[in-house]
Amino acid sequence: MKFTVLGSGAGLPSKDRNTQSFVIDCVLEYNEYILIDAGEALQHRILHTHIKPSKIKNIFITHLHGDHIFGLPGFLSSRAFQGGEGIPLTIYGPAGLREWLDLTFKISESTLNYPLEIIEVEADMTIRLNDFTVRVLPLSHGIDSFAYIFKENDKIGELLTDKLLALGLKPGPVYGKIKASETFTVEGKEYQTADFIGETIYGRKIAVHGDTRLNSKEDYLNQLFNADLIVHEATFLKDEKEKAHDYFHSEINQVLNMFSELNYKQLLFVHISSRYTDEDIREVSAALNDKAAIAFDYFELPIPRNVQ
Amino acid sequence: MKFTVLGSGAGLPSKDRNTQSFVIDCVLEYNEYILIDAGEALQHRILHTHIKPSKIKNIFITHLHGDHIFGLPGFLSSRAFQGGEGIPLTIYGPAGLREWLDLTFKISESTLNYPLEIIEVEADMTIRLNDFTVRVLPLSHGIDSFAYIFKENDKIGELLTDKLLALGLKPGPVYGKIKASETFTVEGKEYQTADFIGETIYGRKIAVHGDTRLNSKEDYLNQLFNADLIVHEATFLKDEKEKAHDYFHSEINQVLNMFSELNYKQLLFVHISSRYTDEDIREVSAALNDKAAIAFDYFELPIPRNVQ
Repeated sequence: MKFTVLGSGAGLPSKDRNTQSFVIDCVLEYNEYILIDAGEALQHRILHTHIKPSKIKNIFITHLHGDHIFGLPGFLSSRAFQGGEGIPLTIYGPAGLREWLDLTFKISESTLNYPLEIIEVEADMTIRLNDFTVRVLPLSHGIDSFAYIFKENDKIGELLTDKLLALGLKPGPVYGKIKASETFTVEGKEYQTADFIGETIYGRKIAVHGDTRLNSKEDYLNQLFNADLIVHEATFLKDEKEKAHDYFHSEINQVLNMFSELNYKQLLFVHISSRYTDEDIREVSAALNDKAAIAFDYFELPIPRNVQ
Repeated sequence: MKFTVLGSGAGLPSKDRNTQSFVIDCVLEYNEYILIDAGEALQHRILHTHIKPSKIKNIFITHLHGDHIFGLPGFLSSRAFQGGEGIPLTIYGPAGLREWLDLTFKISESTLNYPLEIIEVEADMTIRLNDFTVRVLPLSHGIDSFAYIFKENDKIGELLTDKLLALGLKPGPVYGKIKASETFTVEGKEYQTADFIGETIYGRKIAVHGDTRLNSKEDYLNQLFNADLIVHEATFLKDEKEKAHDYFHSEINQVLNMFSELNYKQLLFVHISSRYTDEDIREVSAALNDKAAIAFDYFELPIPRNVQ
């Protein structure tokens, strides 16, 4: 699994940074991509990657500001011609999204050749996908804006084949049967399956934020506990806390401080304003600890399997 | 004056060809650009040119298919932050455009900091800009689609200064006065100003088509007579006349034949399907006559001043 950044910029795209779009790439695990936000030219960015639009089956929109949604109509229209025919797609996002997409497709006389479901989300909803449970947290951006916390389902541990071989059980269909039942019997003796199963493989947790002011409520931070990856905006990279507050955005040091007591593995800063030069980015990056990084477009961050 | 191609492709953008957008660059003459169509990522394309969004003061939309309008919301939003504050902009396009932009700005909570006027056009309208008269012609595309014929206003010829000097009149404010009146008097003798004015400078004519089937009505062709530049779609480059007809598009040889009896200076083919390879394009281009060319992105075609 990896996290791919298709647009790491803020409201105004620059030559280097597009407006916001990310992909949770779980093709190896689940044969699909989860798309988060759809800045304009998302479909153009995808042309330069290995991502197949038809394998994007779920899209999450954090909020309805233009730099997060203006790439949606084009992506949805083109997906139909890029292998997506007949392959369902679900979009989760704030209220207003359905009305806008409906009118967009009506006036442009677009017809999609695949089923599209639009689910308007609310704070504190829980969404169940096939392989993830997604928690919707409210943020503070002057417009409905959400963080989505993607928690991969936990998986039962592997069969301890060495222990089974020691009982004289050779690999075959019997292994599957054992894993599916609570107990099994060999030569008249009953065994607990749990004693022959390795440790639970805990699902990964990826928290992706929409634009927001600093938000340090305790119940919010609890939701992020033990995250494998936190993706947070840092529209302001310098000491501009008041400006960040006024514009409903965050400043990078505020975010680092907010998470300083939190247990997490990686922190990725996105939504970087186009006002900053490469030199600014280098300077700020150099001061970050090992767990934190500033994203750039086409950045790919592996999210290793979580064996605890 | 020149014609700049920002997107020469058809419905699906490719790495090389974006969806449709053009600019009539008359910065040298009138300090403005006229934008025609706004495919997605128009604002990204502009970042790689010298074009200043604030100097785009008029936009013409040929039709409402997504590949011609999905770049409009992003361009309009960003223009505000790219020097456009307070500088009015007018958009001309088919009915439905205003409703869509209104809802788009409402749900994305965008506010523009410049006056935006949207004028919905109809077939056979005449639009007067400061320096051009624009004629709106109906096309055949299964949705309202228009060609815009931009006719630069004719200009009175230059003062023939040699002839004035021969009368003993030296350059100065008197030259302006002469040009502004029908007659003038030197040493008691009256002269006709017209005898001291060079030939009229005829305005340039640029005809830009929306997507369309072949259209060979006589009154339509009459409108294109003597065009300095005709921009026409050629979604199909090979011998695919029936397919072109079925999909409400044109095939390149059809268009060449349609214009074979027409007097014009240059013909530019656009809206090239992404299915064609560079090799295909080279092959078709090689067979064109000197007056015709297939556009590519960032193509710039000079439109010389028209002295007849």
